[in-house]
Formats: sequence, structure tokens, C-alpha cells
Amino acid sequence: MKKLSILGATGSIGTQTLDVIRKSNGQLKLVGVTANTSVEKVIQIIEEFDPSYVAMMDGKSADKIADYCKQNNRKIQIYDGIEGLNKIASIDEIDIVVTSVVGMIGLEPTIKAIEAKKDIALANKETLVVAGQLVMKAAREHNVKILPVDSEHGAISQCLKGNDKKALRKIILTASGGPFRGKITEELNNIKVEDALKHPKWNMGRKITIDSATLMNKGLEVIEAHWLFDCDYDNIQVLVHPQSIIHSMVEYIDGSIIAQLGAQDMRLPIQYAVNYEERNGLMADTIDFYEISKLTFEKPDLDTFKCLKLAFKAGKMGGLMPTILNGANEAAVDLFLNKKIGFLQIPEIIEKCMEVFRGEVRKELNLDNIIDLDRRVKKYVKEKIV
Amino acid sequence: MKKLSILGATGSIGTQTLDVIRKSNGQLKLVGVTANTSVEKVIQIIEEFDPSYVAMMDGKSADKIADYCKQNNRKIQIYDGIEGLNKIASIDEIDIVVTSVVGMIGLEPTIKAIEAKKDIALANKETLVVAGQLVMKAAREHNVKILPVDSEHGAISQCLKGNDKKALRKIILTASGGPFRGKITEELNNIKVEDALKHPKWNMGRKITIDSATLMNKGLEVIEAHWLFDCDYDNIQVLVHPQSIIHSMVEYIDGSIIAQLGAQDMRLPIQYAVNYEERNGLMADTIDFYEISKLTFEKPDLDTFKCLKLAFKAGKMGGLMPTILNGANEAAVDLFLNKKIGFLQIPEIIEKCMEVFRGEVRKELNLDNIIDLDRRVKKYVKEKIV
Repeated sequence: MKKLSILGATGSIGTQTLDVIRKSNGQLKLVGVTANTSVEKVIQIIEEFDPSYVAMMDGKSADKIADYCKQNNRKIQIYDGIEGLNKIASIDEIDIVVTSVVGMIGLEPTIKAIEAKKDIALANKETLVVAGQLVMKAAREHNVKILPVDSEHGAISQCLKGNDKKALRKIILTASGGPFRGKITEELNNIKVEDALKHPKWNMGRKITIDSATLMNKGLEVIEAHWLFDCDYDNIQVLVHPQSIIHSMVEYIDGSIIAQLGAQDMRLPIQYAVNYEERNGLMADTIDFYEISKLTFEKPDLDTFKCLKLAFKAGKMGGLMPTILNGANEAAVDLFLNKKIGFLQIPEIIEKCMEVFRGEVRKELNLDNIIDLDRRVKKYVKEKIV
Repeated sequence: MKKLSILGATGSIGTQTLDVIRKSNGQLKLVGVTANTSVEKVIQIIEEFDPSYVAMMDGKSADKIADYCKQNNRKIQIYDGIEGLNKIASIDEIDIVVTSVVGMIGLEPTIKAIEAKKDIALANKETLVVAGQLVMKAAREHNVKILPVDSEHGAISQCLKGNDKKALRKIILTASGGPFRGKITEELNNIKVEDALKHPKWNMGRKITIDSATLMNKGLEVIEAHWLFDCDYDNIQVLVHPQSIIHSMVEYIDGSIIAQLGAQDMRLPIQYAVNYEERNGLMADTIDFYEISKLTFEKPDLDTFKCLKLAFKAGKMGGLMPTILNGANEAAVDLFLNKKIGFLQIPEIIEKCMEVFRGEVRKELNLDNIIDLDRRVKKYVKEKIV
């Protein structure tokens, strides 16, 4: 049995992780959970999974959980704030932390978990995007596994299984193309939030759904892939594949390509990660090739979907540039979701920030500088641009 | 450096194996070769690769090689007949035998090679089709590797790499569908030998090209896959994939599918097998997904292509039934190539033989009974049917 904490247990990945635990026949035990303010959902989790530790980012929500536990005579350790997240990430008795919070907030607890020698089922993209170098170095030093949870990196990991790392020539990262695939820039001018939230293939949270529409999600995944698999940016190819059945591929030095295919069910890569990349048959949707009849491929349109181009550029520049890219994107997507800016302003804002903050890129790459720069970039976006 | 013998060095696979050796930067050394009657080609091989042992099935051809060596002062051991093949398969100093002869003739030398503890790069389908049980048992007993050379089984082997055998749920064996894909029975009535020899994707020998047109080739591969990967027939699915880019797939118990894709170049699976499934970059054609744009899939038409259905049936019946299937097929294809029978008579003849010899299926499965029954089935086809 493996014991785990989930950071962000009430979100999309968190909820699906709970389902994986539910169907694990007791092979997985939930010990710690965190959430922001979703008191009701956390109470349901407490009732069903009986965790020993809970943290709520929001102090008042933590108080409500504490009251509930008192009234129901439940002995649970309750924490709040980022310190609470850090605590849940490093509980003595856990083996693995599922980092399914969204955004920069996941970075510090992930580092704490690694320092406490916890393996990481990594669903928080931003962690590797802004701090890939630090995180992978810490993981090596503390002999900790970084197990990717998303479908693309989980696929790459499966495609690399049993092969010599030196034989890897290229990563082929597939992309559905999002809801606006095939459109040209002019057609994206008047995109509404509702349109952007309709993803053709995957049912996900709001921020990542917008990132999928701009292709920034794929850009962030490129940077993640660079760090996870130690692969040069020039050897990472993005391939638009609208059916989203091939979840990614790997090309080897002998020209052989290994692909991973599967149903669009995030529980499958979650299950694979939290089981330390061993397979089990507890959840097993699959593909019927007699039914699907074809798989298609396209080159991504980097002129229309500038975010992907910007992500490659930021990744290649390295240092703190991905922090600028990511901070500007988070702030811009937030403005778009709140209908303060148009869809095409998202890449404009990011590009502007990459120019404005360019002088800071070569500062020392450490947690404080990342968090500080992220804060200043977001502040800049909110104050100067709107 | 690995030392190898090639059985059938002048055929299609043999010639491509020579090219793999040529490009191996000295990592592979050819020690023994066999051929039937191709004296000129063998002399070229002697000049280029300097093997120490040569066997010719045909005695007169062996004499010619001997004369040549004498005149040119070359010290080469020369053998003939099946005993010659057995000798080349079990030379002391070799590590691995490439069994690229076509037909039943490959069986005995393969068994001899295994008994001499030589690893097998297996390109001779018939070996596993008629004697899979014997060959795999002998390989286990002598701790010998059976490394599949053809593109499909090489693909499956790559898809299984690093995974627990118990996690395998299904093998998805892809098939180009051959030159007559999409046709109905009536349209196959007047097929000419020349039409059947035009394979849309792979450039191969004559017998295997006809087998590809009837789908018997895929049927034989199903039986091979059953033995190589210890997979029930009910868990082997044939999938028509006309582009022949996916070379086969494996489905795991968690619903995940791993596929191997690559260029249509037999040297790639040969290279993978003779390098003991390690990858190297010496020969590396690959796939450009921006170019290929789509991959399609179809269910095979078992009513039109009866050979595939017969192969599944023979495989499931087991015992000596695959020997009957294979012998009848070899004889029928020979008659077709010599324009003695029509295309649709190939499955008719096989079905007939499976009925006529049915009483012999449960005889003891040993080399003598296989060879004897094969001979009698072929004799029956030639005498009774034409």
C-alpha cells in the first residue's frame, strides 16, 4: 500500500485522483489533502477517505473544517495557508504527493515535498515551467521520483520505458489543437470566454482550458518535457492531432517511433503515476480501432497561435524567462476569464512582459527570485495593461 | 562485437542483413553463410565479408564455391545440404543465427542452433508456425533468445519493452491489407500472378508477397505472435492499416496502448534484432508526421480473405494443424506462382487439406512428425488437386 497526499484535492485532477484511490482496492491510502475554500467538498473527502491531515489555503475555511471535526469527533490535524500546504506535502508517513494545485502556488510545497524525500506525482505544470532546473536538481539530490501525471508526459514516460535514455532523439508532443484549430488570427478577434471554454476533447479546469485554446498549454508542456526528459528544445516537436488518441510519441536514434495511445480519461495517467508506473487493470477504458477509422496530423500554426512560439522562445532563453512567460500568461488568462481583455491580447501581453522584464532573466534562479518576479510580472499586467 | 551466421544470405532478408552488417562499424562480424544455388552472390559475399564457413543446399553449387576458394587461395570450410545448414547454424564461435531461409527448410537448423545455445534472429516464419511449442520450449531450456526480425513482431517486442508480461492484454497486429484490399471475392477470380506480386508497401520475396495478397502472411504472423509472446489467439487482433506506418501495437490491462511506428525498411527490425534489441543510429530512416497527415484503420474482411480465418482456426486447434495449414499453403502458393491454379484456389486447397489430414492433428508434436506430415500434405496438394 502506498500512502499519499493530494495538494488541491477538490479540483479537476484532485477529484479524479480521489476516484483512482477509490478504485484501488486499498492499494492507495489518502493521508493528507489540501484545498482553497471548498469546505463542503473537503468534508465529503473526510467522510469517505478518512485522511489524517487537512490544510485549507483560506484561514476561515480551515476554521470551518476544525469546527466540523470537533462536532463529529474526528481527530484530524488541520492547517492553513502556504505553511499548511508545505506541511501536507511533507507528512512523515506519506510516500507520494500529488501536486494538483493550479498555478505558481504549487512550487514551494513541491520543493518541500522533495526535500522531505517524497516522490512527486506532478500535475502542477508551473512547477517545472518556472523552476524545472531547481526541481530536477533537488529530485536527483534527494533521490526522489518525479512522475508526470498529465496525459502527454505520462505517454512519453511510457514510450521511454525500458529504453536507454541515450537512444532518445526526439519527443513528439501531440496537441488536439484546441477549439480554434484551423482558424486564422482575424477570426480570433471576437472570441468569447464561453467559446474558449469549450474544449473539443478534454474536460478540464478553466485556466488550462483557456491555455489549450491559445496553445500556451502545449508551450508549457514543451518546457516541462525539456526538464522531465532532459531533451533539447530543438528535439521537441509539437504535432497537432485533433483526435487526441495518440497522447505523445518518442523517436529513437534508430528511426523507430514509440507512441502511447489511449482513451481521453485523465484517471489513466493519474493511476499510472501514483502506481509508480506499474500498470493495473482497475480502470481500463480503451480504444477500438475498428471504430475510430483514422488518426490525422497537422503542423501547428505558430503565426495564429503565438503563445506556443513564445513558450519555445522563453524556454530556449532559459533562466527566469519562463517565469515571466508563465506569470504574464496566468495574469492575462485571469483578465480574459473576467472579460477585461480579448483573446488575442493574451499573447500580446505575454510578449510585452518578455520585453519589459528581459533585464531580469539572468538573475540567480532561486525560489525567492522566481516568486518575486512572478508577483511583479502579474502586478505589472494588472496595473499597466488594463 | 557479435559474430553471426546467416541462413539464406542471398534472399531478401539475407541481403538486407548483409547491409546491416556493412553499416555496423565493425560491431557485427559475418562468420557463416548459407544459400541454395546462388554461387555468384555467395562469391561476392565471400569477397566482401570474408566468412569462415559456407554451406550451399545444392551440392554442385558447393563444389563451385570450393573451386573458387581453391583458385583464390581462400581458406573457407564448405558444406552442403541440410547437414551443411545445420553446421552453419551451430558454429562454435558465433553468437547469433539469422534464420532468413524461406519455408520449412528453416526448422531443423533453427532447432540445431538453439541446442548449440545460439541466439536466434528469427525471420523464418514457418519455424514458429509449425513448431512454436517445440522451439520456445527448447529456447527456454537452453536459455536462448528468440529475437523476431520481421517488422510486426519486432514492433510488438519494442512495445513490450520494460513492461511486465502479465500486464499484456492484447496484441494488435497491423496488416497493410495487401494489393487486393477492398476487393470482394468475385473480383479475385481472375487475379494474375503479376498482380499478386505487386505489394503496395513492402518489397519482399515472391512467396511472402503472395502470402500478403491472400492475408495468409498475417495469419502465419498471428500464430508466430501466439508463440513468441505467449498470447491467447482471442487476444490477438488483426487491424488493417494500409499506410503500414504503425508496425503493430500492444494493449495493456490499464487500457494503455503502445504502438511502434517507422519507415518501411526491413533493415530497421533486422538491426534491432541482431543488436539484441538495443538501438543504434547507424541506419535511421524515419517518419515525418507533418507530411503523412493521416493513418487509417479497417477491419479485415475474413469472408474474402479466407486464409486469415483458416490460420486463426488452425492456430486455435493447435497440435499439427498449423503444419497442415502451412504445408498446404506453401504447395498452393507454388502452384499459383507456376500458374497451375487460380488465386481463390489457394484457400480452397488449404481448407481441403485441413479436412483431409484432420485425423493426424493430435499425433505427437515432434520434428519427425512435422517434417513427415508437411511432406505428405505437399505431395497430396501436388498429386491430388491439380
